[in-house]
Amino acid sequence: MAFSLTILGANSAIPIGNRFPTSQIVEFNQHKFMVDCGEGAQLQVRKNKIKLQGLKAIFISHLHGDHYFGIFGLLGTMNLLGRTVPLKIFSYPGLKEMIELQLKASKSGYEFELVFIELGHGTSELIYEDNVVEVYTIPLSHRIPTNGFLFKEKRGKRKISKFHIEEYNIPISQINGIKEGADFISETGEVIPNIEITDNPPKTWSYAYCSDTKYAERIVPIIKGVDVLYHEATFLKTELKRAKNTMHSTTAQAGKIAKLAEVGELIIGHYSARYKDLNPHLEETKEVFENTHLAIEGGRFEYP
Amino acid sequence: MAFSLTILGANSAIPIGNRFPTSQIVEFNQHKFMVDCGEGAQLQVRKNKIKLQGLKAIFISHLHGDHYFGIFGLLGTMNLLGRTVPLKIFSYPGLKEMIELQLKASKSGYEFELVFIELGHGTSELIYEDNVVEVYTIPLSHRIPTNGFLFKEKRGKRKISKFHIEEYNIPISQINGIKEGADFISETGEVIPNIEITDNPPKTWSYAYCSDTKYAERIVPIIKGVDVLYHEATFLKTELKRAKNTMHSTTAQAGKIAKLAEVGELIIGHYSARYKDLNPHLEETKEVFENTHLAIEGGRFEYP
Repeated sequence: MAFSLTILGANSAIPIGNRFPTSQIVEFNQHKFMVDCGEGAQLQVRKNKIKLQGLKAIFISHLHGDHYFGIFGLLGTMNLLGRTVPLKIFSYPGLKEMIELQLKASKSGYEFELVFIELGHGTSELIYEDNVVEVYTIPLSHRIPTNGFLFKEKRGKRKISKFHIEEYNIPISQINGIKEGADFISETGEVIPNIEITDNPPKTWSYAYCSDTKYAERIVPIIKGVDVLYHEATFLKTELKRAKNTMHSTTAQAGKIAKLAEVGELIIGHYSARYKDLNPHLEETKEVFENTHLAIEGGRFEYP
Repeated sequence: MAFSLTILGANSAIPIGNRFPTSQIVEFNQHKFMVDCGEGAQLQVRKNKIKLQGLKAIFISHLHGDHYFGIFGLLGTMNLLGRTVPLKIFSYPGLKEMIELQLKASKSGYEFELVFIELGHGTSELIYEDNVVEVYTIPLSHRIPTNGFLFKEKRGKRKISKFHIEEYNIPISQINGIKEGADFISETGEVIPNIEITDNPPKTWSYAYCSDTKYAERIVPIIKGVDVLYHEATFLKTELKRAKNTMHSTTAQAGKIAKLAEVGELIIGHYSARYKDLNPHLEETKEVFENTHLAIEGGRFEYP
């Protein structure tokens, strides 16, 4: 699976029924990341039998509790389960101190290194990169400094088939160069253009996570054309005033951002506990942007 | 209901399936208390539709995360739901600072007063009292300072029936005194002994919560004869050595404490995640102390 998204929680601060506060697992080609870590995230991880020992980084959008209160238990459990690989945490001032305080209180520590990276706010920046993916911040508009996160899969190498390797008798030493775009030069000096012996790499995926935020068109250029957009839709349209006051978005506003940014697909979440039935959320958003889905606990979105 | 106990979580640190870390609601005559507040406690509260706006106090046994990581979310939700009544928190140094740090990070505060009471360790002390109940600490033996809690319902007033009030034409002004044990003296000077016109008050209940702890006979005198004992039984008998090393108890040890203390009923919990089936826990404990029950999430024990 090139890209997948697993919803651990998609509710706002006050829990209701089986709806958990915000957390999700973003995976690009076996590279796993967690975005936000609301209370109970580790319970959802264990219940859904998700392996997290290889988790590369946790990205915290902002320090409202429903987006990070699960991190203390998650780290403790990773430690008890034997993690030794370092873990990056992207967050804001304060979280590091809280984690240190609770370790001090429990007279314990982790057997793995925690690498804290402090987030800025205001401009979109590249904050993480490995051989599979780049992650950029998306400055959002909320009551406290908040960033969304833009994941861009890196383009893979060009594909060369066994057939061509045998046809031109290409030595192993040249395969990597050809995958990276070089032409093949045979022993006799004949030049075979790269395009004739390779195929384009697989499609790359992009994912933008935007929660929590009021309606903010200024993010549109940053998320323009992403394949998948997760955008908060805390309230139905009737609560437009409340959305404005609390700096959250309505269904219609989430849909409008998706439309303006010409994204491939929209997933909404961060529902207020006042709504027991979420179908009106889906219907209202679809009126503006048809290809919309609801984020539901345990739900998994897969992109090959 | 004179006394009831609702289990929100009864697992140890690593979650499994639908088993949550430790938390429970203790209620004596409509006076509600929370004992420990593991991650997800507020999710269980909301799911089980438990009203907590009148919650009088939270007692935290010790600062291992599986006993208090849920308190941040719980307090935040109480605040969002409009709580204004002060709340007492009995805990250890560190928790107050953590709560203050997260409030600072979220640039928010509570609309109700939090009253922190710092717990000592080493001797059993009266730490809470109201018109219904007294709460004493039970010094436990764990890797960090840990207290159990002993709840003792106060004896109610004596009961006087309408029949006797009419028979002797007792004026309202004397009713309270008689309920408190006074004899009735009629207008003619006749003395009616209290015992002839009143009945004993209802039975009072006592409850001892002991988690986490290694096997420690020194608590027996403190919990002697309680009606209900909750005692941790993290491991089966086969893991005796592991129990000793981690300063936890086995099933048989929990049973032995119940037997030595001559309690009315034993409830066990704090199960290790290594056990999927909990029936062996029940069977092993019953071999030592027959009147044993398993603490299970959502379970409610009622004592009229």
